Formats: sequence, structure tokens, C-alpha cells
Amino acid sequence: MRLGVCYYPEHWPEAWCAEDAAAMAALGVSTVRIGEFAWSRIEPEPGRFEWGWLDRAIDTLARAGLEITLGTPTATPPKWLIDRHPDILAVDRRGRPRRFGSRRHYCFSSLTYRRETARIVEAVAQRYGAHPAVTAWQTDNEYGCHDTVESFSEDARVAFRAWLARRYGDVATLNAAWGNVFWSMEYRSFDEIDPPNETVTEANPAHRMDWRRFGSDEVVAYNRLQVEILRAHAPGRTILHNFMGSFTQFDHHAVGADLDVATWDSYPLGFLEQGHWPAETKARYLRQGHPDFTAFHHDLYRGVGRGRWWVMEQQPGPVNWAPYNPAPLPGMVRAWTWEAFAHGAEVVSYFRWRQAPFAQEQMHAGLHRPDRVEAPAAGEARQVAREIKTVPDDPTPRAPVALIFDYQAQWLFEIQPQGASYRHFELALDWYGALRRLGLDVDVVAPEADLSGYAAIVAPALPFVTDALAARLAQSNAVLLFGPRAGSKTARVTIPDALAPGALQALLPIKVTRVESLRPGVVEAAGAYGITRWLEHVEAGAGVQVHAKTPSGAPVWLQAGRAHYLAGWPCARLLDDALRAVAGAAGLSALDLPQDLRLRRRGRVRFAVNYGPQPIDLAAHVPGAAGFAYRLGGPHLEPAGVAAWVEA
Amino acid sequence: MRLGVCYYPEHWPEAWCAEDAAAMAALGVSTVRIGEFAWSRIEPEPGRFEWGWLDRAIDTLARAGLEITLGTPTATPPKWLIDRHPDILAVDRRGRPRRFGSRRHYCFSSLTYRRETARIVEAVAQRYGAHPAVTAWQTDNEYGCHDTVESFSEDARVAFRAWLARRYGDVATLNAAWGNVFWSMEYRSFDEIDPPNETVTEANPAHRMDWRRFGSDEVVAYNRLQVEILRAHAPGRTILHNFMGSFTQFDHHAVGADLDVATWDSYPLGFLEQGHWPAETKARYLRQGHPDFTAFHHDLYRGVGRGRWWVMEQQPGPVNWAPYNPAPLPGMVRAWTWEAFAHGAEVVSYFRWRQAPFAQEQMHAGLHRPDRVEAPAAGEARQVAREIKTVPDDPTPRAPVALIFDYQAQWLFEIQPQGASYRHFELALDWYGALRRLGLDVDVVAPEADLSGYAAIVAPALPFVTDALAARLAQSNAVLLFGPRAGSKTARVTIPDALAPGALQALLPIKVTRVESLRPGVVEAAGAYGITRWLEHVEAGAGVQVHAKTPSGAPVWLQAGRAHYLAGWPCARLLDDALRAVAGAAGLSALDLPQDLRLRRRGRVRFAVNYGPQPIDLAAHVPGAAGFAYRLGGPHLEPAGVAAWVEA
Amino acid sequence: MRLGVCYYPEHWPEAWCAEDAAAMAALGVSTVRIGEFAWSRIEPEPGRFEWGWLDRAIDTLARAGLEITLGTPTATPPKWLIDRHPDILAVDRRGRPRRFGSRRHYCFSSLTYRRETARIVEAVAQRYGAHPAVTAWQTDNEYGCHDTVESFSEDARVAFRAWLARRYGDVATLNAAWGNVFWSMEYRSFDEIDPPNETVTEANPAHRMDWRRFGSDEVVAYNRLQVEILRAHAPGRTILHNFMGSFTQFDHHAVGADLDVATWDSYPLGFLEQGHWPAETKARYLRQGHPDFTAFHHDLYRGVGRGRWWVMEQQPGPVNWAPYNPAPLPGMVRAWTWEAFAHGAEVVSYFRWRQAPFAQEQMHAGLHRPDRVEAPAAGEARQVAREIKTVPDDPTPRAPVALIFDYQAQWLFEIQPQGASYRHFELALDWYGALRRLGLDVDVVAPEADLSGYAAIVAPALPFVTDALAARLAQSNAVLLFGPRAGSKTARVTIPDALAPGALQALLPIKVTRVESLRPGVVEAAGAYGITRWLEHVEAGAGVQVHAKTPSGAPVWLQAGRAHYLAGWPCARLLDDALRAVAGAAGLSALDLPQDLRLRRRGRVRFAVNYGPQPIDLAAHVPGAAGFAYRLGGPHLEPAGVAAWVEA
Repeated sequence: MRLGVCYYPEHWPEAWCAEDAAAMAALGVSTVRIGEFAWSRIEPEPGRFEWGWLDRAIDTLARAGLEITLGTPTATPPKWLIDRHPDILAVDRRGRPRRFGSRRHYCFSSLTYRRETARIVEAVAQRYGAHPAVTAWQTDNEYGCHDTVESFSEDARVAFRAWLARRYGDVATLNAAWGNVFWSMEYRSFDEIDPPNETVTEANPAHRMDWRRFGSDEVVAYNRLQVEILRAHAPGRTILHNFMGSFTQFDHHAVGADLDVATWDSYPLGFLEQGHWPAETKARYLRQGHPDFTAFHHDLYRGVGRGRWWVMEQQPGPVNWAPYNPAPLPGMVRAWTWEAFAHGAEVVSYFRWRQAPFAQEQMHAGLHRPDRVEAPAAGEARQVAREIKTVPDDPTPRAPVALIFDYQAQWLFEIQPQGASYRHFELALDWYGALRRLGLDVDVVAPEADLSGYAAIVAPALPFVTDALAARLAQSNAVLLFGPRAGSKTARVTIPDALAPGALQALLPIKVTRVESLRPGVVEAAGAYGITRWLEHVEAGAGVQVHAKTPSGAPVWLQAGRAHYLAGWPCARLLDDALRAVAGAAGLSALDLPQDLRLRRRGRVRFAVNYGPQPIDLAAHVPGAAGFAYRLGGPHLEPAGVAAWVEA
Repeated sequence: MRLGVCYYPEHWPEAWCAEDAAAMAALGVSTVRIGEFAWSRIEPEPGRFEWGWLDRAIDTLARAGLEITLGTPTATPPKWLIDRHPDILAVDRRGRPRRFGSRRHYCFSSLTYRRETARIVEAVAQRYGAHPAVTAWQTDNEYGCHDTVESFSEDARVAFRAWLARRYGDVATLNAAWGNVFWSMEYRSFDEIDPPNETVTEANPAHRMDWRRFGSDEVVAYNRLQVEILRAHAPGRTILHNFMGSFTQFDHHAVGADLDVATWDSYPLGFLEQGHWPAETKARYLRQGHPDFTAFHHDLYRGVGRGRWWVMEQQPGPVNWAPYNPAPLPGMVRAWTWEAFAHGAEVVSYFRWRQAPFAQEQMHAGLHRPDRVEAPAAGEARQVAREIKTVPDDPTPRAPVALIFDYQAQWLFEIQPQGASYRHFELALDWYGALRRLGLDVDVVAPEADLSGYAAIVAPALPFVTDALAARLAQSNAVLLFGPRAGSKTARVTIPDALAPGALQALLPIKVTRVESLRPGVVEAAGAYGITRWLEHVEAGAGVQVHAKTPSGAPVWLQAGRAHYLAGWPCARLLDDALRAVAGAAGLSALDLPQDLRLRRRGRVRFAVNYGPQPIDLAAHVPGAAGFAYRLGGPHLEPAGVAAWVEA
Repeated sequence: MRLGVCYYPEHWPEAWCAEDAAAMAALGVSTVRIGEFAWSRIEPEPGRFEWGWLDRAIDTLARAGLEITLGTPTATPPKWLIDRHPDILAVDRRGRPRRFGSRRHYCFSSLTYRRETARIVEAVAQRYGAHPAVTAWQTDNEYGCHDTVESFSEDARVAFRAWLARRYGDVATLNAAWGNVFWSMEYRSFDEIDPPNETVTEANPAHRMDWRRFGSDEVVAYNRLQVEILRAHAPGRTILHNFMGSFTQFDHHAVGADLDVATWDSYPLGFLEQGHWPAETKARYLRQGHPDFTAFHHDLYRGVGRGRWWVMEQQPGPVNWAPYNPAPLPGMVRAWTWEAFAHGAEVVSYFRWRQAPFAQEQMHAGLHRPDRVEAPAAGEARQVAREIKTVPDDPTPRAPVALIFDYQAQWLFEIQPQGASYRHFELALDWYGALRRLGLDVDVVAPEADLSGYAAIVAPALPFVTDALAARLAQSNAVLLFGPRAGSKTARVTIPDALAPGALQALLPIKVTRVESLRPGVVEAAGAYGITRWLEHVEAGAGVQVHAKTPSGAPVWLQAGRAHYLAGWPCARLLDDALRAVAGAAGLSALDLPQDLRLRRRGRVRFAVNYGPQPIDLAAHVPGAAGFAYRLGGPHLEPAGVAAWVEA
């Protein structure tokens, strides 16, 4: 458990650097990220490199005892490069170049940009790869930010055709797989195929799905290009990338597979404002962020990093980019930091050391104000730095519950929602939050993850189930809970021959014979439960138990052996009862936490955070809490309060 | 009264065709539509035709005793054709081509596509025109679907100029007619005139109106091109097209004039979700569709087909294309079928025989599931097939009431709403629904229709009234009711010299001196009535009776002889009272039906359908119903219930 | 105080002109505006001028004793000119030309259009500059209408680069000023800089701000080009332009500096419908317009015209361009006319003499109907013409209160709202309305205006404060009230070194250490007050009084000497109390007017207007009103009622 900070030596008079470095060390920071937007300073003109300023900054920081994460500057190619090679620019859905003047204006498929990326990454890596203080490297910055995964450029079109040729071998196979006979959409060669933009009505969902898979693979390939250069020139260094919150345009598991550590940029208040929650939820957590959104991503990126993860950018005050930008509750920056450590973060790094008085993010707070005085977050970071010493730095073992999160499900439900309110990310967060309210620790995992050792596995949205996945689920010995639409599609984006849940029928002998989506306000009652948005008509095979059904007899909660299935979008009560049943069968003891309280274990230590506006008495909700030996706080949690104790 | 189905032999293994054909016949289906999207299978490469599969499919279906409607495949030109001739693509309002990858990607004005259309239609018609089982031909598919009437292509621009030259003769006449002096918009030749897109603020409404008229004429010409080829090669066969619900971008009466039969594609649940109704209405009729929307179209297309019409595609279950896609109430597919027959349908044809497991419509239900098992609608269709034999197949005579529906009114009010809530289609449906709730049968007719023989004629929106139309209305001897804005425009889209109602002043000696539109929530009281959205200030001439007026004395319901006029958007009560008064004067007896019950006569037979969630006792609403001799059902109507009896 | 009218002789048979002129004179109109859209009639073909019709119209009007304002026809370049020079067309944000077919389709930066403008203005000015009846000239028409200030044309790009080069001298200075190091946005020459459109995420706010300043300067330069030609050829004539309501895309003060008189086009009902008010406000003032919106613009344009101003277009009935277009309350056209005179208008000119039956504005009312009969407004104008003789035509002295309105504040808060609800124009109107409800007369002034002689100066939004402005405010001896964000930016759009309020710290020894924006529904209480939308955290220096603060101690109303500061978006009560305190300290006596009553002085005369639906008894709200010697009306004000009396 260490603290870090993001720093931009190029933004300040060089004389300040030494002072800043000393102040960082004094505050308790041990690692600094620099350099990720500095291309125009590193190479101010084609081929002319200016290393001096960066050499001095690195040495100054190193002398203060700080470790350095150096970012490759590829998120911001400079104007001279764009003017020389306009084919670097990404092309939007309507065929227009996305222009210079901010950041991320490149196309992942641009062959020119791949070449230029290799050139600049190699230059930086050659210079600093062996520097002892540069212990980590960040590739690029926030892949996908500002909707930048998709590009409809000529290079992308050519690459997509090649990708399809590799996937399908011959075009007849593709025509058959996609069902192109449907509207005479058949192709005679791969060279006839375009990206699926600007069609008169929706393009073939198989076409769109492959386009999304291709786009994700392009991000993976682009990142791998950087990783390979860094591994060559910076051997033994930690290679990481800073992901973002609720970005789903590429498969983060796949990018993470090439990294040593996954990191993410955690802005609880900005994400709250951008999210789907109702107004009363946004008002309640205005200055705290949603109690589950951040934790979900901690658990997700721990999986992406195969156990190793950081918060690379931690919100320290109001940001500039959400529709509304309130200030955190006093103490909340500390609470966020501890929540991250509770989930196993190795480093929590604040963005940024000092608020810039200029350019796009001048209204984005830092640990210091633009006038070089400490902002409120600095004091909270200092407190955490002291507190770290009192809490054991245990490893984070496998959680008892796995929640499967499949990026392909997100793409499918964007392409084919079938009901306008079928929002995959909301569904996944709902299920995750319900588990959190039971006090259960969760691993958010890819469908490809090792599923052994979990007591329970839940899959709120798993439309693509191969026979191999069905077999791994069966072999896991976990109690299973599937949400609606599980196994409802083949990889070719067609309906399985035996209908949904397809390959899962080996576990769950049921058949979904009809599905319907429901407009907001329509509730189908099923005893004490209610189904909204989505309802399936299910035929249950022999031995299937029905725990709840509609008055007309449609089962909404079914069970066969260790596998449960919810045949609709569940109300909170149904979801809660189903998860409790699953936990019980899995031998897990579930709590009944109030809406604002959350718990998390890290090894022997268990943490509690109060996200609400009122104090909470832990003892009323956690058996034995009155008597714990607290390392942080105690049983009385003020708003933004944190407690930690070593469990027996 | 016959049943049909839509079938795609190219979607299934050829071996299934004979089984499917036998099952259709067994179910009671007698006619099958095929082929309308099959261009890429008919002509997989330029000039190479593959007839074998289609020969065999047609023969197999014919052997099972089925009649065939063969569709021309022009709604889906294949990729090789587009790549050879990119000028086929329609061009959107912003000047961008609408690209390949779905359907309807052609421009009606494309000279190349006219030539290619003639080529493929001729090829298909030559091959199957004389086949005894191919008894009907469908031109293209759903003209206008996906907003495809307008195209801003170079061919369209040239054709528009020629169209204007034909209409106006010389450009000075056009300048005067349009009032181009207004903002120095005068042209020196027709070659200076462009389509009215992308102007800085609104273009001249006369310019826009002529563009809409031109666009409609292009559809008529395109369809006529196909019809003439089919008549040449398939003499004596029925020629038809499948129109859609609430499509108004071209004059359906004008296209219909070239056809033998009008058909339409009836999706009651999809249309409900897409419609303008308030949320409580959409919730009430979630699984039934709106009680009047479908019937309105039945009555409209009966007029378009000059008495002959089919439902070509009848919704059988959840569809895939509405914002939300619920399942029909059990029995509702049967009820929809009988409602269509009640309005005079010759055929009701279900879309489609079997749900496709692939491509864009894989979530669209059919009579069978993708796994070849019957879906619920199959049983309801089988029941109808049995019931048909018990109900006399009477012809559908002229209704007592005509409602004039003018597509040009729709265009005008889109171009010049003057108040954002002035929605023409909603107004027409409101008036139609009010007539239905009185138990009156209605013909929806064009202004050009023969108006003789009607007891009452109502015109909710008739801005364009020529002297000839005014004379025909006078000669009809019908009781007349006009809505606001009647006669308010000349054909040149200017205000008549003597102000509104223009030529109608011969019937109605009134003058509209000022109009105003009102924001939502504003109600102008007029005694027990309320006016919203639109209020006119009317000077009433001698002999005009005022039945209702505002406190400041503005008349809102006026009458002169047999002609009534509503000088504003009426509340339900005013509309109801005015229509009752009209019916009374016309000698028609009006009922007072509850909100969910609807009646319709076909010859001697009268039908009743319950669209509501509760049972209805017919005897409480229809005099004598307790004693009718029912051919279908009885006086107690369950939800989705149908009754039919022969009237004395 | 004179009446005018807008007239289009080219729209009517020439024979009508003399009759119309006589009727104008009889009605009491003394000045007529003509010609501003007549280019295609003045020059129907390249280089061929048709002066005859205009010569005759001018002479006919002059013979009736009317003065003429002649408009240059540059808002509507004809089609032949556009076809010859497509580079005249403005280019939208997405790079597409804005096409011919309506009006204002030119780019202010087009070099071709500057040349063509000079040519046509010179031609018209040479012909009529010396005509004795042509006493005034209007440049163009409604600069900025239909969002036409910004153009992303090639000419604009080149001009922008030159503008930047003049402003910054060298590109290193620009890079430093803008903080382009931030995302490697540094330029190597001015020729690398583009307009800030179509960037991937937001462009640098400094870049965007300079683009807005440049765009405003282009309007100023374009107008000046016309003014200089007119001054050369029409010496001694009044030069004016007709501005619009709530247009903020250019600095109206700067354009006004080149004019003799500012005029504006006042459409109270259209502006109400377009405005931000809640539905209940729009319903209450449906037929009156908002009581403060129109008055605000009167006071604004009096400043723009340095004391001299007209209403060039006064709404006379329903218009055609708002979402809903109701009719004015009977008497309201008269009341609007008197409200304008009360604020010092020299002329109120109605738009238009007669409603046109054709083209875009055929649904826009005039003083006459299209059938040449008087519309209701004609009678009201005639009444005003009589009443004018009974009211002293006093000059309008400086008001006691100045409200600073800075167009650059508008641009900044559009570029960098930081909270989505921070709407500058709404804030300014709120403050202005609060002053009006105290019965105080207000001058709306530019930051550059002479600030001496005011008892109080309020600045709801003044982010840019130079040292010079701070000094002028200090020297004014007025009591001062600043809204939030005052002095929060340098001219380079950066945060001041000593933080906000920057240069104002000389007056107000406070420091804004943190700001936050709040979502709708969130209210921060501060005693009896509430803060919404925006809250600042302020450190108060020695001697600063805190009049209100939040429970956590954040001051929201501070005072240092004569200067007050509100550190958030105030509730109505806080704003009212603060303004009363300011008025009291400034020695001004404040009333407490009810919501529908407004007062205004012009010299010795004070006016009252009732904007509400109920009668108002003046004596209940204005001391002594029962005994005034009224020149118009009396103490009992019916809806739309006007009173005027000479004050002691």
C-alpha cells in the first residue's frame, strides 16, 4: 500500500521541481507518474529531440527518493505530425476526420501511426529504459476516452477485411455465418465488405458484432506494439496502462493480458454525475460517489491485472468534465483511498499534484491549488500516509464469489437491446451492488478466467456460452446464478438451434421459447416479486424447481441442481432473495447491510466505509463489531468514516 | 376471407420446403408470399441468374395447393450492383450517400436504378409471369420504409428541375407562385433551383411543398415502371404493393391507382410503441395495440385499393424493431385477424412462417419458432381458419361516413406547423376514433375520391380546397364537418385572397381573420368545451349559427346549412358533440361505446372486438345484443374476445 | 417619440403604394423602413440595376410626408451571385456550406463577399444617399440571426491566423498564453492553427475564446465596411442596425460604437416561447411577454446606441417562428409601445405594414391582414399616435443603477460552464428583474462604459476584470455588488495568480479557493437563504463582513467597504436582500412591486405597465399614486393597462 501522484514538470518553472519533489516525499508519496502528454516537448520538431528537461526532472524526482512511472506520449501526437500525416486522424461514423486540438485524435488502425508510435516509444524507452528510478511504464493514456475506439478510416476498412478473412477463411463461410441471405447482403469477396456505418436501417448484428470485436482487437494490437518495445528496452520494469470507469468499447481483459499491472482512473463524483442513477441517488451520494461503482471497478481491474492493480488517478476534489462538479465531502478522499486499498490496490496515485491554471483542465482540482497552497485533499493524503503504517499490507486472495463480466455482452446488448431499457452495465452493477449489500466480497472476472475455487458464480449477462464455458461452469462446483438472456446467442450472433440458454442446457434443462421487452412503468407481478423491462417464457424440463412464477404460470426463478436462472429483469427483492439462496447453498454467511455501509476484506483485514450522510453504528449491522480491535476508526462511523480491523 | 403467410425458401435447407408447404396447407393457409428480398440469390453475379432454387420452391408450394404472391426483389439491390453503380444510393439531407448493408438503399430518381429495376423485374416476370400458381405480384417492399422517399442526389436535383419546369412552364411563373421576391430568392432559370435542404433557416414553404410533391411523384413513377412490366409479362395477375402504417411521405392514393389491390403490413404492438399516445394509453393497450390505429389503416387502404385490400404482413408475436417489444395477449392474433376481415380484407397473411435465427430480424416472431416448433400464433391462425367457414364472406359496401385524408395536408403541416403540437396524423386519428366510439363505420378517402352517397363527410384537416372540391362537397348532399385550417392555403401554399376557408366560403360564409397556436397546458374555455393547441378568430357571415364560443365571443363551432366548422383543436367532448350532431342530421344512429369496445360491419355481418383488459357485456352497449344469433362468440366478450352476428 | 413601420413595396402591386403611404400617414406613422431584402429586385442580373421601382416607391412615400430608413440588402445575396462565388457561403461547424434558399447565407470573413458588399452598398448609397426623404440607413439585417456569426470557411481560417498573429506577435507567446503545453497542443507557426471545431474532445478554452473574439471582430469589421461607405455617400444621415433579442454571438457594444443609433427587433411573445422560463411563467405571460425581457433589451440597446435607440420591428400580432405563436392580449401592442418609449425609444416601428400571403413569413401578422383590412394592432397604434401628444417627450438621463453586461462573459460561460446549469443570460436577467421589482431604473452597460455618476453598479457576471476596470470601479464611488466568478479569469482565460476575484482583490480582500457546481435540486442552505447551481469557498481577508454563510462556515454574502460579493448563485430572497442593501447604501429608495407591475421613468415622466392577468391598483404599491396627475390612464390598471404621470 503506497501513495502516488501525477506530475507535469513541463507545466511549471523548472525551479519548482525540486521543491515539489521534496514536498511529495514529505507528504508520504513514493511514486510519481510523468510524461504521458509531453510529445511536443520531447520532440518539438520532426526528429529533433529535447531530452534535457526530462532528464533533469527525472533526476530531481529520483533524488527525492521517488519512483517514477513514465508514460509514453502517444495519446497526444503533435500538430506537425498530423499535418505531415493526416491519415493518422481517426474518422468518425459519418466519415469525417476527428481533428487536432485536444487529444486522442489518432486511429488505432493507422499504419502511419503504428510506425510513428514505434518510433517515439522506442526513442523514449531507449533513453530511460535502464534508468533505475523509472520503475514502471504506462502505455499511452486512457484507451477509448472520448469514444475513440471506433474509426471508420481507410486503414481500418482494409484491416477489417483482413481480420474477417482470417476469422472466416472464405467469404461463403462469412455469408453463411452472418445470414447475409436475409436482405441480399451477400458478398462475393472480402473486398466488398465495409464497416457497418451509415446504413439505411440497422446493419446485420453479426456484421456489427464482428466490427466491435475487430475494434477491440485493434486496441490490443496497438497496446502490444508498445509493450513489446518497452519490454525490449526496459527489461524488468512494470508495464501498465491506466484504464477508465465504465469504458466498454474494448475487451479490457484482453489488453490486460499483455500488462504486468492494471491501473484505472477513479473519479467517483464525475462518474456519479455521468451515470444512469435516478436523481435522488445522485443527490444522496453527491459528494461521496456511488457506494458500488468504484468498488466494482476495483474488483474488475484486479481481475484485468491478474491480481495486480493500482489506482493511477484518484479524484482529489471537484473535476471539470462532468455535467456538474461538486466537491467531495471532507474525509472522502481518504475514504476512497482506503476503499481502494481494501480491494487490494498496490498504489493509489492522486491526479494531480497541482491544479493547472491554464488549458482544458484548469478547473480540475489537485492536491495543491494553482497558487501553490495545499488544497484540502493534501491533508487527507497525508493522513492516509500515516495510517498505512498501522494496517497490515496483506495480499488479496480470491473472493468467495465471482461475477462474470463479458465485454461482448455489452456490445451485443448495444447492438441488439430488443428493449430500449436493457442496459447491460446497469444490470451488472445492480447485481454487484446486491452482493455488496450482503457483505460478500466479489471478484469480477472474464468468462475466460479460471473459475475454480469459487463458492458461487453469478452471471447477470452471459449471452455467449460455448460448450467449453458450460463445462467449466459445471466443473467449478460453485453454486451458479444466471440472469436472463444467458446462452441466448451463438458466437455468430444467431439463436442457438435448441434455443436459449443454448450450451447451458447441459446444466439447466430449460428452453426459452419467447422473450418480450416491457416499457417503463410496466411491472409483471410474480408473487411478491416484480419483473420489469424483460420477461422470458420458459419451458422447464424434468427436475427443474420453480421458485417464483407469474399468475399465468411463467416461471421467473428456476433451479436445477446447483444452477439458478432468473427469467427476467428482477426487482431488488427477487435479486436479493435469489442471491441469498445462492450464498446459503454455497455456505457463505450473508449480512444485511444498510444502504450506505460497505465492507471489504483484504487478507486478514476487513474494512468498512460509510457512504451516507448520517453516522452508522457498525455494531447494529456487523456481528461482534462492538468488540473488534480496530486498526482504523471504530464501531461508530461518521459520514466518510472508515474502520478497519483484523478478523479472527 | 383467406389466410396467407410470408415465406423465405432461401433461408432454410431446401429439404424443409415440402414439409413447410404441407404444414401451411394443413394449418389453413392458402396463399404464400415469397421472393421479395432474394436478388442476391436470383442474380448472384452480374448477369448470371440462378433460377433453379426458385423454380423448385414455387413448384413445391404449388403442389401443396398454395397460391403464390411473388415479390420483385428491388428493395435490396446486391452489393456488386452498388459497387458498379454508386449513383444508385440515395443521398441524405446532409448530402451523404446512404450506404449498403441493410435495405432500401436506392434513390427513386436514380436513372441507373430505374434501368436496373426494369432489367431485374423483366427477368423475374418473364420467368414466372405465366406460372399458374403465381397469381399475384408484389412490387418492391414497403416504399418509404426507413425514411427513404427523400433523396438529395444529383439525379433527383435534375429531375426536380424538370418537374418544376413542367409544372410552371417558365421561371417567372414559379417566382411569382412561390413569392420568391420575399428574401431575394428569385431564380433566373430552372437550372438555378436546388432541393430545399441545408438552408440557413427554413426554405420557402412553397419550395418545400413542391419538393414533397415531386418526391411523391417519383415513387408513383417508380412503381408504375414495375407495374407496366408486370402487366406485360404476367397478364391477368393481381398486382399489389405492401404499404405500411402511418407512412405519409408519398401519396398512397396515387400509388394505389396503378395497383389492383392495396395491402399493408399491420404490426399493432410495434405501432403502439412508436406512436404519440400518452404512457397510460400505451400501458393499457400494451398487448393489444391501439383499438383505432389498425382499423384506421384498414379503412384507409380499402380506399387506396379502391375496395380491394389485404393485410400482407400480420404481426404474430413480439417484433424486433419497436423501442419495446411485448408479446400479444393470448387470442389477440386471432382478434386482429378478424378485425381485418370485418373491414373487408380479402386475405390476412402472417409475417412470417418461421422466425429466422440470423440477421436483423432474428428477434421477430413468426408462426413457428426457430427450432421449428409452433409458436402461439399458429394455434390462433388455425382457429381462424376453422372459424372462417362459419361467417358469411360478404362484400364491403360504402360506409355511411367518409373521412377525408389528404397526404398533402400532412406535408403542409410538417412544413408549416405554426404550432409545434399541430400533428396532422394525431388529429386525423382522433377524429376517426371519435367516429368509431359512436359505432359508425368509416371510409377513409382521398380528396379526389367519389364523395357521392355518403350521409356524412368529415375533414379533420383539409387545407387545400379547390373550387372543384368545394363544388363536389356541396353536391354530395352529405352533412359536412370541417376541422380548423380548412381551405387555408392555395395550391401555391399562399393564403387565399379572401382568407380561409377560401373556396369553402361558398359553403361556409365565414372568414378566419387570425389564427394562434397555444403551448401545451393552455386551454381556451368555450362553455363546456375546451380548445387547445390551435384557436382561430372567425368572422361569421349572415345565417351562420354559432353553437359554441369563447367568453370573448370567438366562435369555435359554427354551422351554415349542412356544413359545420370547428375553429380550433377540439377537446374530446366538443368533437363528440359535433360528430353526434352531424350523425343525427345525417340520419345515422350513434352508439356510445366504452373505451375498449369496437364494432364493424362487413355486409350483413357485424363484428365486435374487446381491446381492453376486462370482460365486456355487449348487451350493455349494443341494443339487442343479448338476442343476436352469433356466428362467432356471444354477448360476453373476454379480453381479446371477438363476436360476430348477422344483422337483421 | 414617433411611430414607424416596415414596408416592402416590392411585395405588392405598385398601384397600392400611394394608398398605403396615405394610410400610414393617417394612422400617425412618420417613418418607414424599406429595402433590406431587395437585392434580387435592385440587381436582377449581374451588373444590371433596376432602380425605377425603388425610385418611385421612395418618392411616393416621401410625398406622403414619410421619412425613410433604407436598408442595405446584404442579408440576402441573390442566387446568381452565390452560383458565381460559392465562397460567399458560410461553412458550418462540420465543414459543410450553409446553402442558398433562405437568408443570411454569407460568411462574414469571405473576401469575395466583402467586395460584393462594398459594390452593392456603394451602388445603393450613391443613388439615394442625398435623397432628402432618406434620413436613415440600416446596415444589413439582424446580424447573427440563425446562428450565423461563426463560419469555418477557408477565408475565416486564414483571417483567424492573421488575427492571432496581430494579437500575440509570435507563436511562442500564443503557446504560452494558451497553455498549449498541456496536451502537446503547441504550434510552430500561426499557419498551423485551425479553428477549434470538430476536435475529439473540447479544444483549449483559450483557443475557443479567441475564436469567439475573432468572430465578433469580423462582424464589427463587416459592419464598419458598410458604415464607411454610407458615411461617404449619405453624409449627415442616421446610420443604424437592427439588433435582436438575446443574441450574444458578437459584442453589440463594439458594433454599436460605429453607429449613430441602435435599434432592435422586439417580439415579446416569440422571445417568451424561446426563453428559459418555467412552464407556469410562460403560461402566465402567454399573451404579454415576460415583464423584464423586453425592458432589459431596451436598457441594453440604449447603452449600445450611446443613448439613442429605436425599436425597429415591434411585434403586432402572432408571429410564425416561435414553437407556439399566440396572439397578444388586446391592448398589449399599445403597452409594448409605451414601455419602449418609457425607456427612451425615439421611434417604435411596427413589423410590418401588411402580412404577406406568401413565402416564409406568411403566418407573421402585420398591422393589416393579407386581405388589406386592418388587423387589431392598427387600432392600437393609432391610439398611441394620439396619446403621444399628451406625454412630454423628455430625454432619458443616466439611470441610478448600472448593470454591467459583458458579452465575453457569455462566451466564457458557454465555453467553460463548469456546471451545466450556469446560464449567463438567465443570471443577468434574474438580476435585472430583481432590480425592476424594486422599482429601480437601470442602465445595462458594457464593462468599458463610463461608470461615473451611478449610485450603484451591479455585475452579475464579470469574469474578466483588468486592473484598469478594477480602478474605474473603485473610482466610481458607487456601491458595488458582484456575482460569483467575478475576476475569475485573466484575458488569456487562465486562473489569476492570486486566484479569483483577481484584480478585484484591491476592492474585495477575499480569495476564492475552490468552486463547485451543483446539480438541479441540490440547495445549500445559508441561514434563510439558499444557494443552487454554484457555490464558492471563500477566504475572507481582514475587515470583510460576512452577512450570510453556510452551516459549515462558507460565506455566501460578503462585504468590504462599498463592495459586496455573492459567492454563489443566489436564491431570489438573497438576491433581493442584497440588492435592497445596496440600494439603501446608495441612497436609493426601493419599492416592493408585485410580480406583474413594472415602472420606468423617462425624464419627468414615470410610466407603469400591468403585465398580469388581473387588474392592479397602483396606489397599493406606489406611494401617492392615488393623487398623481395622469397623462395616460390612472391608478387602476387593467391587464395590458398603461399609466403615465409627471413626477414632482
